[in-house]
Amino acid sequence: MRQRLPAEDRRRQLVGIGLMMLRNRPIHELSIDAVAEEAGISRGLLFHYFPTKRDFYIAVISAAGRRLLRVTKPDPTLPPDEQLRQMLLAFVAFVSRRRDSYISFVRGAAGGDNYVVEVYSETRASLTARVLDLLGESTVDQPASPVRLTVHAWLAYVEDLAIEWSGLPVDDRPSSPEELVDHSIAALTTLRRLS
Amino acid sequence: MRQRLPAEDRRRQLVGIGLMMLRNRPIHELSIDAVAEEAGISRGLLFHYFPTKRDFYIAVISAAGRRLLRVTKPDPTLPPDEQLRQMLLAFVAFVSRRRDSYISFVRGAAGGDNYVVEVYSETRASLTARVLDLLGESTVDQPASPVRLTVHAWLAYVEDLAIEWSGLPVDDRPSSPEELVDHSIAALTTLRRLS
Repeated sequence: MRQRLPAEDRRRQLVGIGLMMLRNRPIHELSIDAVAEEAGISRGLLFHYFPTKRDFYIAVISAAGRRLLRVTKPDPTLPPDEQLRQMLLAFVAFVSRRRDSYISFVRGAAGGDNYVVEVYSETRASLTARVLDLLGESTVDQPASPVRLTVHAWLAYVEDLAIEWSGLPVDDRPSSPEELVDHSIAALTTLRRLS
Repeated sequence: MRQRLPAEDRRRQLVGIGLMMLRNRPIHELSIDAVAEEAGISRGLLFHYFPTKRDFYIAVISAAGRRLLRVTKPDPTLPPDEQLRQMLLAFVAFVSRRRDSYISFVRGAAGGDNYVVEVYSETRASLTARVLDLLGESTVDQPASPVRLTVHAWLAYVEDLAIEWSGLPVDDRPSSPEELVDHSIAALTTLRRLS
């Protein structure tokens, strides 16, 4: 029997199903029919909540960006260096677990639309601001600040490491997740000195 | 009057037009009609050379990847460190000149297809192999080699710097292209020591 839900709950449920399905396929392969079926509603009713397929995709991708930020949010009661480590461990775990889906978040295949690029940029900007904050550099969160450019690019470095590393067969990986994070922190320290 | 060209020349001409148009728009916004018109042929004849729109897009994106490799190819008679500098200066210039198009190469908007991701990965792998070669590390071009992982991720770092830097108004940029390249080389030296 179809369950009647308030609009907000229904919307959240549908986005949640989209997120779950994103684990195994990139956004542009998400099937509206499959999402509606999983929710036990008609395709027509889904379009009542999200007028177009694009609206639904944007909602799902935005939720994916928020989830990345949430999952990597460190415990604010820890010292800043511990927070940074915690954030990076969570980030590496996140990328490893959902590698294909994460790559499609980074590298597009966005169904000919730019919303993935935008959500991705905003997520990276938030992570950059968070790291600057942990480094005590929150006052320099301006686009042209050399430290901000360095931290933003360092996140690209860590992301690439995490993608390549998690793409290797487990036995071939030259380091543990912890060592990858240690390397990343050492890289940040040394790159900051150059900027 | 429509010019008659041998098949290979026609194919090359069409891809060349596609490449030119890629300067101002991402691949998925490339209009087949506009390309055919520019070549002075019918849409039908274009599809004679490239059976589907996707075939044409793949040809154009592959050519874009080859062009990046060609443009950044250093003079092999120079000492390795000079070659690295030359390559990076060309890379920064390439990204700056075609920023939007380059971002769509990196970040997708690939019309719901994975070919851009693949061409991008191959191009990055070639650049990585080239840098390893210049560093005298060509023997370690194996996916799981720590030096290879570092160089691959360092290219992501340089790419991100070049994208963010060239997105700033010229007067706001905190460094010249030469300084950006100096920083990138110093970063490579220091990151290599960590790996």
